[in-house]
Amino acid sequence: MAQTSEPSGKVIVVDWGTTSLRAALVSPAGKTIEFVENGCGIQFIADRKFEPELLKTVGPWLKTHGKLPVIASGMITSRNGWVEVPYISCPARVVDLAEGTVRRRLSNGSELFLLPGLTDRSRRPFPDVMRGEETQIVGFGLQRPATIVLPGTHSKWAKVETGQIAKFQTFVTGEIFALLSQHSFIAKTAGEASATANWPAFERGVNVAKNMLDADAAFLTQLFSARTGMLANELGPEDIRDFISGVLIGNEFREAQCCGWTEAGQKIGIVGNDGLNERYSRAANLFELFPTEGGDQAVVAGALEIYSALRQSAVEVA
Amino acid sequence: MAQTSEPSGKVIVVDWGTTSLRAALVSPAGKTIEFVENGCGIQFIADRKFEPELLKTVGPWLKTHGKLPVIASGMITSRNGWVEVPYISCPARVVDLAEGTVRRRLSNGSELFLLPGLTDRSRRPFPDVMRGEETQIVGFGLQRPATIVLPGTHSKWAKVETGQIAKFQTFVTGEIFALLSQHSFIAKTAGEASATANWPAFERGVNVAKNMLDADAAFLTQLFSARTGMLANELGPEDIRDFISGVLIGNEFREAQCCGWTEAGQKIGIVGNDGLNERYSRAANLFELFPTEGGDQAVVAGALEIYSALRQSAVEVA
Repeated sequence: MAQTSEPSGKVIVVDWGTTSLRAALVSPAGKTIEFVENGCGIQFIADRKFEPELLKTVGPWLKTHGKLPVIASGMITSRNGWVEVPYISCPARVVDLAEGTVRRRLSNGSELFLLPGLTDRSRRPFPDVMRGEETQIVGFGLQRPATIVLPGTHSKWAKVETGQIAKFQTFVTGEIFALLSQHSFIAKTAGEASATANWPAFERGVNVAKNMLDADAAFLTQLFSARTGMLANELGPEDIRDFISGVLIGNEFREAQCCGWTEAGQKIGIVGNDGLNERYSRAANLFELFPTEGGDQAVVAGALEIYSALRQSAVEVA
Repeated sequence: MAQTSEPSGKVIVVDWGTTSLRAALVSPAGKTIEFVENGCGIQFIADRKFEPELLKTVGPWLKTHGKLPVIASGMITSRNGWVEVPYISCPARVVDLAEGTVRRRLSNGSELFLLPGLTDRSRRPFPDVMRGEETQIVGFGLQRPATIVLPGTHSKWAKVETGQIAKFQTFVTGEIFALLSQHSFIAKTAGEASATANWPAFERGVNVAKNMLDADAAFLTQLFSARTGMLANELGPEDIRDFISGVLIGNEFREAQCCGWTEAGQKIGIVGNDGLNERYSRAANLFELFPTEGGDQAVVAGALEIYSALRQSAVEVA
């Protein structure tokens, strides 16, 4: 297999999180040519052996196409990752993210670009943080004002204004769902997880969150409705998992509304690759919002845009 | 060991929940003479062998004192327990609980009294339920109007009015704390659980819940502050567990306030035996409430009061 040291214009974009590693081989036109995803999230990498793991995953592409630049974002740039890249503060432009990028050279000669995460210092009680989602938001587009939700273990709501990521807020919705569905009283009563969502149960849960009067609005009470609904013969074992998913995502929308992120009648961008977009889209509809799905190419588009800004800047290779 | 069939006036009170069995040998004057507690909660009893388990625990007292009446409450009367005793509806008086009691005869000749749980059909989206806490509320006293909280895996807030348990509401605070502290991102960063509470961290967490402005009040966001507080070097590993306990209990108080259970300046009764009373008492103080601890004898006092009403009624042994 011939190795070339000439740049082919292709790049590799890596979205490396806590639980998974996703890599895309991308054409000069920004099209994903090949894609791999595996479970080698940073929490599973022993002795900080990040480079061997990366080369195992993208090595075949480097062998075929030469020393392609590798652009990485996500928890790989955190304290527990490869290199801790300092957060950029909101409001942030693409050029700010480019300037905060850290460069390394891989053993094969490829340049590695570690994109920075973002912090919103206006949040209480402590500054909020994201790593990876800022790249997806850039990929969704900073040209027009927008409210964006990025569903996940720790969902993010963000505002795009004047070509910047203006501010954002985290909701740990996915984490609570995982805990409740795997380890709680709900796990004991729920039926087997199904490949297809039980949409009526999900939407019923969203509506519980949406329609609660203030006097009954307690989140900690609504979670108990998975049990009381069974006792009242209103919910069956086959409903519980999606019903509680709906209650949780509905509460995220309700809280986001209370915190000023949305109002009924507004558009909302849904950006993500965690298989949650349809749930968020349906919840958005029930909250009278107009959802636009950002697709799963936002990471690639965002990484390329930051990389492009970086190449236009005067920053030298370290 | 002489067995007598004459009533000695003593009784056995059993508080039998999902995870533990507590039994008290009680004098005619209502004083606990002996007490045992073990981990034989109903979820651990195979093949519905409730009677053998009960006799293993209280058998020595029956041998010594004869066929004492056994008065039991808690999840032992649920669908997964010994006998499913129908719920009594709120508002409920002591006599209503007495009338809903189910009697059985144990193999040694003792009478077993299974006290009913309570349902509040006014709750949304489904009627709320309790089993065991109603007995503790009766023990705390129905003579004077009161707001009572019973801390636990599934905390209950209840109103006593005109000699009745008027209404109540469940908050799954303890369940969420257990999940977060055992299985979540918090479990990974928290230090070892300590025998003594870290009260400054706990009270800081309660205050996060209390002092949030509406624009930052999202519960699903506050939970993330365990991570952002670490990143901001505001919290250490030794703080996380009690900080998040404070955030959760603080949110329970905040939600209870929103739902109309309390207002600043009011008295509140704290009744329970789950080792949480000091936490709830401190949280109550931070929310400007005046807590009164109900002590751990409420189950015994309540069971005796319902039993006494039952003996005065005309209900015959089944």
